[in-house]
Amino acid sequence: MDFSEAMETLTFGEVCEAAAVLKGIAHVTPVMTSYQLNETSGARVFLKCENFQRVGAFKFRGAYYAISRIAVEKPDRPIVTLSSGNHAQGVALACRLHGLQAHIVMPLPVNPMKKQATTDYGATVYEASDRRHAEQIAASLCENLHGILVHPFNDVAVMAGQGTTMLELFDQVPNMDVILAPVSGGGLLSGLCVAAHALDERLKIYACEPAGALDAMYSVQENRIVPMTDPHTIAEGLRASLGTRTLPILREHVAGFFVAEEHEIIEAMRFAHERLKLVIEPSSAVALAPLLRREPFLLGKRVGVILTGGNVDLSVFWQSLEQAANDDSGRSVKKG
Amino acid sequence: MDFSEAMETLTFGEVCEAAAVLKGIAHVTPVMTSYQLNETSGARVFLKCENFQRVGAFKFRGAYYAISRIAVEKPDRPIVTLSSGNHAQGVALACRLHGLQAHIVMPLPVNPMKKQATTDYGATVYEASDRRHAEQIAASLCENLHGILVHPFNDVAVMAGQGTTMLELFDQVPNMDVILAPVSGGGLLSGLCVAAHALDERLKIYACEPAGALDAMYSVQENRIVPMTDPHTIAEGLRASLGTRTLPILREHVAGFFVAEEHEIIEAMRFAHERLKLVIEPSSAVALAPLLRREPFLLGKRVGVILTGGNVDLSVFWQSLEQAANDDSGRSVKKG
Repeated sequence: MDFSEAMETLTFGEVCEAAAVLKGIAHVTPVMTSYQLNETSGARVFLKCENFQRVGAFKFRGAYYAISRIAVEKPDRPIVTLSSGNHAQGVALACRLHGLQAHIVMPLPVNPMKKQATTDYGATVYEASDRRHAEQIAASLCENLHGILVHPFNDVAVMAGQGTTMLELFDQVPNMDVILAPVSGGGLLSGLCVAAHALDERLKIYACEPAGALDAMYSVQENRIVPMTDPHTIAEGLRASLGTRTLPILREHVAGFFVAEEHEIIEAMRFAHERLKLVIEPSSAVALAPLLRREPFLLGKRVGVILTGGNVDLSVFWQSLEQAANDDSGRSVKKG
Repeated sequence: MDFSEAMETLTFGEVCEAAAVLKGIAHVTPVMTSYQLNETSGARVFLKCENFQRVGAFKFRGAYYAISRIAVEKPDRPIVTLSSGNHAQGVALACRLHGLQAHIVMPLPVNPMKKQATTDYGATVYEASDRRHAEQIAASLCENLHGILVHPFNDVAVMAGQGTTMLELFDQVPNMDVILAPVSGGGLLSGLCVAAHALDERLKIYACEPAGALDAMYSVQENRIVPMTDPHTIAEGLRASLGTRTLPILREHVAGFFVAEEHEIIEAMRFAHERLKLVIEPSSAVALAPLLRREPFLLGKRVGVILTGGNVDLSVFWQSLEQAANDDSGRSVKKG
């Protein structure tokens, strides 16, 4: 496959360049605070609300920046990607804004709301039976259409775009001690790490992962990509494995992991809805969960939390709340 | 009953005084914008997010300011009010912050989430079979405990506090053409009107009311308080009738009314959830509905919308969505 701009490592300069490109195009999302959350968690919490970002998730940042580079360097080439979620929407909107064609392969299960939003932005969507099948389709689209793949996370320009979230948060909140962010392929976390440690090397960055999809933690521990074979979590956005470019950055920068069980993820979504009046998707709830259980390490700390997105089907959300209320099956977790 | 500070009319000076008292205590709530909402409505929309206010609704403003005056002028007197909703929570929190006792009478039906929040703030709650019964209990509490009633809307200090919402919105957004706000007893709208027209007399202020509880519109038309006898709406916050102090202000200042049907209220809640990532209660949705149906008068205008609160039971929200999907009963409306 023809990766877009196969730079090998992410630099702080690249994140700053992404910020310059995104200025006036991506939203500067608000930081919210809550007395109730501070009281419940015993920490001072700053919620970076990427659920209010364009397409409803931080993914717009990386997709837009990566595609803006391609539009300059290789104009008129169609863009190909594989994603069943927010990256798909980000690529679709970024392509529309640049006047480029978007071809998006979605591995099942496909969230109908995200698929609809993607086609609404004018992208062509292909469904694939699983991730491997999706990669095959994406490869043949690249070959047949002379397309350029914008990988959801294993792409330095994408990581740089995601890292702009941290630049903004630094402007908005002084003297943070800890950052909590969910991890899937590691694109967001890589961008956060490089930006954060360029600005304040004492900042502790923790990756948050569902108990039912713990591949990133094991990958960092073993220093190899442990594949996500059988993810078992409502957090559909966190089912990817780390990439060759994200693993080394996480190894170097991440202070540790916090694990969220399924019932904690659902409770965090409910807390956001009822107390914070915020709609967040399960992936975001994974990063809120350690605070709601008063993780001892976080007590008294100033904690930035990346609320990565708000694209959740109401019916899925409601069903999971009902299931959690009716039985304990939400508590059964499975190692990845 | 012993009304707190029975001043007869609301002045702009009183709103400014309320703003000075609330500074650093009430949140300066954010104004949100959305490309999708602008596209859908054909207007340029600015959402004043009082769902992020303390207690989850603008009601904290008026309750706190009214009680701050009582705390100075008549310290140690317990506070009495009647409210089954956000005013109850506002009074309960304001009393806790001032170290005063709160006695709150709730007419049925009582929203369990709002009752819980009210008792969590340390208030004593009494349930009443209906509004008339609630007034009787409140009167006897005032007599027996030597309490002071803080009326939910027919109180100039309360109106002044609610009006601070408009001062903030003016600071945040220049050159608005129209303000949309829901109306129930008219306390919020009175405060908005007096503040808005002191600052810009050309601003058009529209009251938004459910088709199933249209008493305020008829009251303003007939220049008498048309009682709300049989409200029929999911917007539980909008079931009160206008008061003697709010009716004259609305007569003078309100440019007109927009009516929202039940299915429109529910659709507006869904839109807020799915597209804006905001949790809003049905009362707020009433003010969003005219935009979602592209009300011709609003096309091309700069429109400020007061999203009054976000205290909605998840189960009530979900049930209303399901009901709207399953049948047309949501469309049956009843004149108040």
